[in-house]
Amino acid sequence: MATEHTVKSFEQELRRLSGLITQMGGVAEAQVDAAVQAVTRRDVDLAGRVMQSDNRLDDYERQIEQETIRMLALRQPMGSDLREILAALKISADLERTGDYAANIAKRSIALAQLPAVRPASAIPRMGKLVQEMLKEVLDAYVDRDLDKAIAAWHRDEELDDLYTSLFREVLTYMMEDPRNITPCTHLLFIAKNLERAGDHATNIAETIHFLIVGQPLTTDRPKGDESSFAVVSPETPATP
Amino acid sequence: MATEHTVKSFEQELRRLSGLITQMGGVAEAQVDAAVQAVTRRDVDLAGRVMQSDNRLDDYERQIEQETIRMLALRQPMGSDLREILAALKISADLERTGDYAANIAKRSIALAQLPAVRPASAIPRMGKLVQEMLKEVLDAYVDRDLDKAIAAWHRDEELDDLYTSLFREVLTYMMEDPRNITPCTHLLFIAKNLERAGDHATNIAETIHFLIVGQPLTTDRPKGDESSFAVVSPETPATP
Repeated sequence: MATEHTVKSFEQELRRLSGLITQMGGVAEAQVDAAVQAVTRRDVDLAGRVMQSDNRLDDYERQIEQETIRMLALRQPMGSDLREILAALKISADLERTGDYAANIAKRSIALAQLPAVRPASAIPRMGKLVQEMLKEVLDAYVDRDLDKAIAAWHRDEELDDLYTSLFREVLTYMMEDPRNITPCTHLLFIAKNLERAGDHATNIAETIHFLIVGQPLTTDRPKGDESSFAVVSPETPATP
Repeated sequence: MATEHTVKSFEQELRRLSGLITQMGGVAEAQVDAAVQAVTRRDVDLAGRVMQSDNRLDDYERQIEQETIRMLALRQPMGSDLREILAALKISADLERTGDYAANIAKRSIALAQLPAVRPASAIPRMGKLVQEMLKEVLDAYVDRDLDKAIAAWHRDEELDDLYTSLFREVLTYMMEDPRNITPCTHLLFIAKNLERAGDHATNIAETIHFLIVGQPLTTDRPKGDESSFAVVSPETPATP
């Protein structure tokens, strides 16, 4: 049987793990913020820093993975303790992917800075802000073990998908107006897609929090993905599906 | 202490888990194949079937997740047994994402079927074939616990990135030639991006197999991601970076 001392230090380990996730989440949030700023300010230096900092998230993921494996092997946890550890493993993978998307946005901002500025770029900061808010909300929900907050963030993904779908149409129309817009607009499309994906990872985290708290997967249907995949925009009727 | 009977049935459970992964891998492979065929044949019915079948992969992932949680809680495995279980959890997540990419390709093939056919579409089957081969190789490597095969598949991701980067340039040039190409070409770009991402998940699986066999993460640098993020293609000099 575990002594009181063992129990106590396991709780400390769980708190430490949870602290690592929170720190990693802060870094992921900052990376998304900086990447979007690199786009809007056409700031190549900032973009370079975002790309360089991505390995911090890789390091966090590796560290969390090693911690969880060690804790699973040595502590052989059950029930909610087991869920805590598995949730940390999952959330760290989602945060690492979010960082990859931020790094890709930064990379594309360098290409964009060499090209003429295009109007639809103005929708990017709105999408970026929404992603950051979603990330902040799910991380708060994680810290507070707040199911309602997690579900509220989960629902905001729809808003993000709508922003993405309308940006998609706008960008296509803009490309058709002038071939010089095609390259910058293509990068914008992928930047927007990266943000949309980062939002998906925030909803994944919300689902993991549900599993962590309730012990069951979230069964409601996930908010619908982006609708732009079905979009047919033609030069004759640019605004019609 | 575990009796011989318990040990035996744990081995059976591990084999069963491994069998689930292999089956799920087969479904993911078939989904990628069918999605690419839906694009090349402009087959809207097939696309619909791919989109419908995606929930099979979701079901596998859920089942594998439940199995692993149960096994971790009841069996409290250590060492290589623990790695087996964690590897199954990770690989199923990668296969589920691969299925999402296949479903998105299918969705876009429906839009494409309503639009004039465009030439760069011919590169898609090559990319699709490469992704399928990579998937097959990592699944074989998983079944055989073959590290060399896993690493060989991991290296093929570079080939896929190169195909993607050259398709990216070709598509942009094609868009600039005629605005009517813009919408179909945009869907092609995202289809290609989905395949490139599916390849990333195959390399993730190769990395998980490394961890499973060696007990350590793969430390060599991952093959470089797509270089198209840096691409600056202009209507005046369509072929120059």
